[in-house]
Amino acid sequence: MIIVMRPGASQEELAAVEAAVRETALEPHVIYGTERKVVAATGDERGVSPGTFELLSGVEKVMPVLAPYKLASVETRPGRTVVRPAPRPGVGPFAAAWGAREVVVIAGPCTVEGREQVVETARAVRAAGAVALRGGAFKPRTNPYSFQGLMEEGLEYMAEARAATGLPVVTEVLSAADVKLVAGYADVLQIGARNMQNYLLLRAVGEINRPVLLKRGMSATLDELLFAAEYVLMQGNPDVILCERGIRTFERHARNTLSLAAVPALKARTHLPVIVDPSHGTGHSYLVAPMALAAVAAGADGLMLEVAPDPRRALVDGGQTLDFCQFEELMRGISAVARAVGRGLALPAGGGADAPDREKTGDG
Amino acid sequence: MIIVMRPGASQEELAAVEAAVRETALEPHVIYGTERKVVAATGDERGVSPGTFELLSGVEKVMPVLAPYKLASVETRPGRTVVRPAPRPGVGPFAAAWGAREVVVIAGPCTVEGREQVVETARAVRAAGAVALRGGAFKPRTNPYSFQGLMEEGLEYMAEARAATGLPVVTEVLSAADVKLVAGYADVLQIGARNMQNYLLLRAVGEINRPVLLKRGMSATLDELLFAAEYVLMQGNPDVILCERGIRTFERHARNTLSLAAVPALKARTHLPVIVDPSHGTGHSYLVAPMALAAVAAGADGLMLEVAPDPRRALVDGGQTLDFCQFEELMRGISAVARAVGRGLALPAGGGADAPDREKTGDG
Amino acid sequence: MIIVMRPGASQEELAAVEAAVRETALEPHVIYGTERKVVAATGDERGVSPGTFELLSGVEKVMPVLAPYKLASVETRPGRTVVRPAPRPGVGPFAAAWGAREVVVIAGPCTVEGREQVVETARAVRAAGAVALRGGAFKPRTNPYSFQGLMEEGLEYMAEARAATGLPVVTEVLSAADVKLVAGYADVLQIGARNMQNYLLLRAVGEINRPVLLKRGMSATLDELLFAAEYVLMQGNPDVILCERGIRTFERHARNTLSLAAVPALKARTHLPVIVDPSHGTGHSYLVAPMALAAVAAGADGLMLEVAPDPRRALVDGGQTLDFCQFEELMRGISAVARAVGRGLALPAGGGADAPDREKTGDG
Amino acid sequence: MIIVMRPGASQEELAAVEAAVRETALEPHVIYGTERKVVAATGDERGVSPGTFELLSGVEKVMPVLAPYKLASVETRPGRTVVRPAPRPGVGPFAAAWGAREVVVIAGPCTVEGREQVVETARAVRAAGAVALRGGAFKPRTNPYSFQGLMEEGLEYMAEARAATGLPVVTEVLSAADVKLVAGYADVLQIGARNMQNYLLLRAVGEINRPVLLKRGMSATLDELLFAAEYVLMQGNPDVILCERGIRTFERHARNTLSLAAVPALKARTHLPVIVDPSHGTGHSYLVAPMALAAVAAGADGLMLEVAPDPRRALVDGGQTLDFCQFEELMRGISAVARAVGRGLALPAGGGADAPDREKTGDG
Repeated sequence: MIIVMRPGASQEELAAVEAAVRETALEPHVIYGTERKVVAATGDERGVSPGTFELLSGVEKVMPVLAPYKLASVETRPGRTVVRPAPRPGVGPFAAAWGAREVVVIAGPCTVEGREQVVETARAVRAAGAVALRGGAFKPRTNPYSFQGLMEEGLEYMAEARAATGLPVVTEVLSAADVKLVAGYADVLQIGARNMQNYLLLRAVGEINRPVLLKRGMSATLDELLFAAEYVLMQGNPDVILCERGIRTFERHARNTLSLAAVPALKARTHLPVIVDPSHGTGHSYLVAPMALAAVAAGADGLMLEVAPDPRRALVDGGQTLDFCQFEELMRGISAVARAVGRGLALPAGGGADAPDREKTGDG
Repeated sequence: MIIVMRPGASQEELAAVEAAVRETALEPHVIYGTERKVVAATGDERGVSPGTFELLSGVEKVMPVLAPYKLASVETRPGRTVVRPAPRPGVGPFAAAWGAREVVVIAGPCTVEGREQVVETARAVRAAGAVALRGGAFKPRTNPYSFQGLMEEGLEYMAEARAATGLPVVTEVLSAADVKLVAGYADVLQIGARNMQNYLLLRAVGEINRPVLLKRGMSATLDELLFAAEYVLMQGNPDVILCERGIRTFERHARNTLSLAAVPALKARTHLPVIVDPSHGTGHSYLVAPMALAAVAAGADGLMLEVAPDPRRALVDGGQTLDFCQFEELMRGISAVARAVGRGLALPAGGGADAPDREKTGDG
Repeated sequence: MIIVMRPGASQEELAAVEAAVRETALEPHVIYGTERKVVAATGDERGVSPGTFELLSGVEKVMPVLAPYKLASVETRPGRTVVRPAPRPGVGPFAAAWGAREVVVIAGPCTVEGREQVVETARAVRAAGAVALRGGAFKPRTNPYSFQGLMEEGLEYMAEARAATGLPVVTEVLSAADVKLVAGYADVLQIGARNMQNYLLLRAVGEINRPVLLKRGMSATLDELLFAAEYVLMQGNPDVILCERGIRTFERHARNTLSLAAVPALKARTHLPVIVDPSHGTGHSYLVAPMALAAVAAGADGLMLEVAPDPRRALVDGGQTLDFCQFEELMRGISAVARAVGRGLALPAGGGADAPDREKTGDG
Repeated sequence: MIIVMRPGASQEELAAVEAAVRETALEPHVIYGTERKVVAATGDERGVSPGTFELLSGVEKVMPVLAPYKLASVETRPGRTVVRPAPRPGVGPFAAAWGAREVVVIAGPCTVEGREQVVETARAVRAAGAVALRGGAFKPRTNPYSFQGLMEEGLEYMAEARAATGLPVVTEVLSAADVKLVAGYADVLQIGARNMQNYLLLRAVGEINRPVLLKRGMSATLDELLFAAEYVLMQGNPDVILCERGIRTFERHARNTLSLAAVPALKARTHLPVIVDPSHGTGHSYLVAPMALAAVAAGADGLMLEVAPDPRRALVDGGQTLDFCQFEELMRGISAVARAVGRGLALPAGGGADAPDREKTGDG
C-alpha cells in the first residue's frame, strides 16, 4: 500500500503514519520526494483497509498495490482452468468445456414457458451446434407485475430437454435456499447480474459440486467480479465461468453497453474462463449477431445466446431473442470467426452445424 | 404504449401491429404523421412487454407511456406516507417519523464491532440529536477477506444500545432466511444497495410488520428503485423509506456520485419518504458534512450518517465515518439548514436514559 | 510516480526500470515487498507520461503521485482567489465577487432572443437580487436545425441590459477567433461544457483581461477541469471561476446528474471559486430550486440560473427555465440557506431581494 | 412528438396543449387512454423543442418520435456512402475507400515527433498492409505541460511520408482557423473526440473538399454523433467517416470503454462508414489487438491504430501503441477475421515507393 503525505506534512505526522502501518503488521518504508513524502507499506495488505490510513493527519491519499483477490488470480494458479459439467446418469459426457481451445455456445430461451417450447428449442440449438442449453425457471424481474418463471416445473422441462438432446442444463438460481433444488436439475448454476454481490448465495454455490456461471453485475468493476468469484472459490468449488453481459452507461441505443475489452482484460487477470452474453448485453436482436462474432474475435471462451421458436411471443425479453433461422446462420459465422482466431467451435456429441453428418444423429 | 412504425411501413405491417395490440387487450389507435405512422395502444400496459411489438415487421421503436409501478406512485395514493417504527415493550414511542415535516437523522457505526462501541456511539449520537441508531451486524463485503460482521451478537448489542438510549435500531438484513431473526431485534429493516433487486428478500420484508429502509442500487434508475419498493408494498407492508446513497459513474474523487436531484425527482413520483446517505454516497469524511447539508436543502426527509468513537480504528469504512465532535457540529448545521427550508429537526424523545435534559437544548 | 512490478519480475527487469526512471530525470527508489517489488520515482513527475514505464518488461502498473496541475492547486497558492469583473466606463463597480463570503447569483435567459426580453429579464432578476446577468448570444447547439443565437446583435442587447441595470454581463464565447469581439461586450467570458477541452480557446481567453467562467465538461473528471483551468492560468489570466453543471451518467430522470460533491472536492483541491448551474445540471424547472438550495448548502460560491419572462415560449431550453415569480421565491430560499451555512447573498448595488428598500431603486 | 398528459389533466389543459401544438405548425391528435390522455403532434418536429410543451400545465412528459438528423440518416439516402480521398498530384489514386466491402486500416504514430519516425513508420505500416497513415501534428492535450505537437513541421513530415509510401495522410485539425493549413497537407481531416461538438470547426470542415474522420465524443450518444456529422453534411461535404473510440464509464481497467455495439447500431441508422480506434478506445497495448479483431467482426469498415518504432519512447500515449512486429501480426489476424465475416482487407496500391512486390504478399 502506498500512502502519499500532503505537502508540508510534519515529521510527527509521518511518524504517526509509520506507527499505524506497523500496527497492521505491514512494514513502512519512507521515500522522500521533492514535493511529497511517501510511505510504502509492504506485506500482505489484503486484510488492511485503506481507510485506516486515510484519516490520519497529514495523509493525502492511499493507493493499494496488490490485486485483492487470490484464488481467482493468474498469479496463484498457473495455466487456465477448464470447467466441465459432470456427466449425468444416463447422459454421457458433455461436449461443453469452458476455457479449452474450442468456443462453447450455450443457447436456449430466456425463460422456460412450457415443455414443448424448451424441448423444441433444445433440439434446434443442438442441431445448429450449441453444446449447452440455457433457460430460466426462476426469473428475477425488475417489474413485479411481470411473469416470474415456472420454477420447479420449468426445471423439469429443462431436464426433459437434456434427456432429449444430451445438452447440459444451465439455469439461474436466485437464493441460497434454492441451491439444492436447482442443483438437482442443473448442470451449471447461473448467478445473475443482480445477484453478483449476493454473498450468501455465492457461498452456497461454492459449497456444492456444480460449475457456476457468474455474470458480471451491471455496474461491477473487474475487481468486484473477481472478488465475487473468490467467494465461490474460497468454499472449495473451483469451477467458475465468468460472463460479461453489458454494463450500465449513458448509452441509450442498447439496453447495456457490452464491454468486450473486459474479455482480454479478465483473461490477463484470472485463469477462469470468460464468456459473453450478447443477448442481455445489447437487448436488441439486430445487435446480437455482430456482438457475438465480436466476442469470439476478442477471445471469449464461449457465448450465451437467447433463442426461441417465436421470439415475438416470448413472455420475457423477446426483443433480444433470435429465432432458429437467425441462430443457425449466426452459428456459421461464429464457427468462421473462431477458426480465424485460431480456435474452433465445440460441437455437440455426434456433430453440429459444421459436421457434414450432423443430421444423422439420433437426438439432434 | 406508443409504437412508432418505420418510414415506408406497409398497410399490412400496420394491420399486423394493430392485431398484436388487440391480442394483449390494449386498444390500438393509428395516427398518420407526415413521416411516420404511429400506433397508440391504450389500456393498462403494465403487464405488456415492449418487446412484444419491437420484433414485428415494420416497427421502429416502442415507447411506454405509463410509469410501470402502481402502489408506490403518487397517482395511486394522495398525500405523503409517514413511516413510524412501532413502539417496543419497555421502549416508549420513538421520535423518528420519516416523511413528516421534521428531518430525521439516523446515525451510528458502519459496523457493530463490540458492545461498548455501539452503546457509546448511541449515547453520543442521541446527545447530538439523532433519533435512530444504525449499525451493521450482517455485512455484505465486496472483499471476502474483510470482516463480515458480528451477526446475531451484533444485533444483541444494538438492542442494548436501544435500551440505553431509547433510539430505534436500523440494521441491514441480507437474506430472506434471516428476516425473522433480524426483525426480532430491529425496528427498521435496511435493504442494502447490493440487494435492491434481490426480489426474494424484498418479498420477505414485505410480509412482516417492520418499516423497510430501501437503498437505491448503485446503478438503479428511479423507476427500478420504485419497482423494488413496489415488491415490498405488494406484500402488504406500506412502510418503505427510500434512500439515495450514490450511484456509480466515471467520477473518481468520491466513492460514488451522490445524486441529490433524485430527492426532488423521487418526491414528484412517489408518496414514500426519501432520505440520503452521504457517508456511502461520498466515501470520504470531508465530503460528508457538505453533502448532508445539501441533502436537507434538496428536500430530503432524513439522513443516514456513519459515526464512530474512533473512525481511524474502524474495521469497515473508517474513511467516511465522522467522530463525535464532527457529528455534533454537523447536527448544528443540519438544524440550521432544515429551518432555512421551512423544516425542523426531529428530536429524540424525552425518555432517553442519558439525556434527561435534552429538551432544553436548542436543536439537539 | 509509483511503478509496481509484476510478481516474479527479474533483477534485470528491475534494473531496466530504474534506468528508464533515471532517463526521465526522476530518481528511482526500490522497495522490496513480500509479493511485489515497487519502484518509487521521485522528482517532478508532471512532464513524465506513465506510459513511458507501462510498456517496460516486468511492469504491472504505474500510479502517479502528484496532482498534475500546479497554478490551480491549493498547494501553490495559499488563500482563496476572489474573482471580480473590472468596472466598465459609466458602470460603477460591480457587486459580484466570486470566492468571497457572499453567494453570487448570475441569472438571465438561456439565449438572448431580443432587446426587450433581455432588458426586462435583467431588471427582474436584479430586483430579485441577482448580481450578474447571463444570456447566450453565440449558442453551441447539438441540433444543427436549432436556433443558433443572435450573435453580435445579442451581445449588444446584453450591453444595453447592463447599462439599464448595472449588472455585469456573463456570456459564452465559442472560438478563439471571437474572443476579442465577445470581450468587447462581456464582463465575464463563459467557456461552455462542450469547449472545456478546446485548448486553443482556453489559451485565447487566458491572454485577455477578463474573468473566465469555465464549465465542467459533461464527462470531465475534476483533474481534467483543473487542467483546463491551468491552460487559462498559464497564459497569465488568474481569474477563473469553475462551474459544476452536471455530468453524464446512466440516469434518465434529469438531463444530467448534478454532482454536488464536486463543490467541496474542488474547494479542497483549488483556490479558485466554484459555482453551480442547476438549470443545465437538471434540465427540468421543478428540479432547479431544490438543487440551487442544495448547491449553496454544499458550499458553492455562486449559482447560475436560467430565468425568462415566459419560459414556455423560450426558443432554447425552456423546460429548465424559471419565470420571474419562481426566481423571486427561489432567491428568498437561497438567501435563507446561505445564512444558515454562515454566508450571505451578494446583493446588487442599491439592494436586492433582502433589501427592505430595494423597490425604490431606479432600475430594479 | 408524443405529449403525455398527467392523470386527471383537465379539458382546458388539454385544449391549451392542442393550441400550443398548432402554434408550432404541428397537428395535434388526441388519444383518450384508460389512465392518460396523449396528444400526438404530427408533422416535422425537428425544429420544435420538447421544452415548448413540457412546461404547459397538465403535461407529464414529451417524447420525440423522429430521429432529429436528416442528411446522415439511412432514411434520406439509400445505399451506403463510400468515402475516398481525392488523388494528389504525383500520388496516384489511393487504395483507401471507407464504406466499401474491404476493411481499411489507418496506422501510424499517435504524434509526429520527427521526420525519420514518421517516414519509417509509414513504410512499416504500409509493408504490413495499412492503406492510410495517421499522425498528430496538432495535439489536444489534457495536461498543459505535455508535448503539444510539431504543428506545421509535423504536417510536412507527414507529406514526406506520403510521398515515400503513397499512403494518404489522416491528421487532426483543432480549430476552424487551421482548416485551410491542415487541408493543404492532409487527405483526410480528423475531428477529435474533444471537438465533436465544436460546431464552428464542424462547419469549417464542411465547407472544404476533404473527407472528414469524425470521432465520437467521450460521452456522446449516437444521436449526438450523427448531429455532429449533420453539421458537416449540411455545408455540402458528403464525405464523413464516423469513428467509435471509446466512451467514458465507471470502468477502470481500460482508459475508455470501447462500445462496439455502436458499430452495428450506427450502421442501422446512417449510410456513413463507421470505423473503430481500439488504441484510444482501450489505452493499453495488450487490449488493442483483441479489440481490433472484435471491431472487424462487429462490422467496422475500418480501423485506426497507433504504431511506432519504439512505443516505450513515444512522447504521447506510448502505453497504447503497437510496435512494428505487433502490428504485422495483428494485420494477419485482421485479414483472417475480415475474410471470416465475408469481407477482405483493403491493400495498399501498387505504386508505393518501397513496396514494389507488395502484391505478392498474402494479406499484407
